[in-house]
Amino acid sequence: MRERLEKQIHFLAEVDKMKNILRQTLLIDKSRRENDAEHSWHFALMAMILYEYTDQTKVNLDRVLKMALVHDLIEIYAGDTFAYDDIGNESKKEREDAAAEQLFALLPEDQGTELRSLWEEFDKMETSDSRYAAAIDRLQPFINNYFTEGHTWKLGHVTSDKVYKRMDMVRQSTPDLWEFVVDVINDSIAKGYLTR
Amino acid sequence: MRERLEKQIHFLAEVDKMKNILRQTLLIDKSRRENDAEHSWHFALMAMILYEYTDQTKVNLDRVLKMALVHDLIEIYAGDTFAYDDIGNESKKEREDAAAEQLFALLPEDQGTELRSLWEEFDKMETSDSRYAAAIDRLQPFINNYFTEGHTWKLGHVTSDKVYKRMDMVRQSTPDLWEFVVDVINDSIAKGYLTR
Repeated sequence: MRERLEKQIHFLAEVDKMKNILRQTLLIDKSRRENDAEHSWHFALMAMILYEYTDQTKVNLDRVLKMALVHDLIEIYAGDTFAYDDIGNESKKEREDAAAEQLFALLPEDQGTELRSLWEEFDKMETSDSRYAAAIDRLQPFINNYFTEGHTWKLGHVTSDKVYKRMDMVRQSTPDLWEFVVDVINDSIAKGYLTR
Repeated sequence: MRERLEKQIHFLAEVDKMKNILRQTLLIDKSRRENDAEHSWHFALMAMILYEYTDQTKVNLDRVLKMALVHDLIEIYAGDTFAYDDIGNESKKEREDAAAEQLFALLPEDQGTELRSLWEEFDKMETSDSRYAAAIDRLQPFINNYFTEGHTWKLGHVTSDKVYKRMDMVRQSTPDLWEFVVDVINDSIAKGYLTR
């Protein structure tokens, strides 16, 4: 038992590093960049609050919350890849697979396998749970971005067609939120946060 | 529908402030103090990993994860109260009740009521779910504290009897983790992180 617990505690101490993995997104007060631990918490809470907009007969919120908590853990070793960085995204899969190998091996084998399979399911976006999770994972920075005058859109010289493409999972998994997304994009263009 | 969604989005933007509510706990690399969003995420992940040490027939992990995500939201208005601050803890209940009144009113009524009741359940520590949640809420800073050479114990001139009292929920809800807690306390005393 004690060896198992030591592994779990070591893993739980190692993931403290999520608090130093910076994303491009700013906090809404613009004071600084957000980190992966904060993003994961905000994503999970958002998944709770907006759950009524997805098909609740197909999406299991409990599994989505677990996905939110673990979906970015591999960035401890792989780093955060900016959504609009085309070059970074080319090497992303390889870097993240190697990181997963290293990270989940810290846990007892059964738990490492369980967490890795949750992360892989999230990453593939094939199941209803992971598609809802992916929609919320995109909505969280989208909202922070709008409230920070399009900070990361400006940073990446992003055009609205790229944002539409990135947000398409919202249209697919939470269609009742799509009108809101379109309104925010149009308002962002009108205000100069985003290029048409 | 749109008015309901506007309320939810406003709430989700407001809770971004959790990322600026600082706790006394340091990150394990000692670079800075941890905030409430980071703590809530770490607590939720820890509840997932250590679930096998509580009575799984009585504790519903899915409800515990939701409690972890919302348990500190009221600190946006009430501030964080240091666990070992006796004076701050005298006014804590009053400040937190007023904060809850203000915060949960931002949401549509049904959701505000649901989140508030989760928070109240957590706060009272009477149900099996909230007792396991409380145990993990204490374990997370306990572990960070040990790995930062007893930073907050030194800050609060804390003696081991106070730590034993604070950690007693671990003994009650996750008895199989108690030996580990006792070992960490004894090692902390031996290393001068904590006063006997």
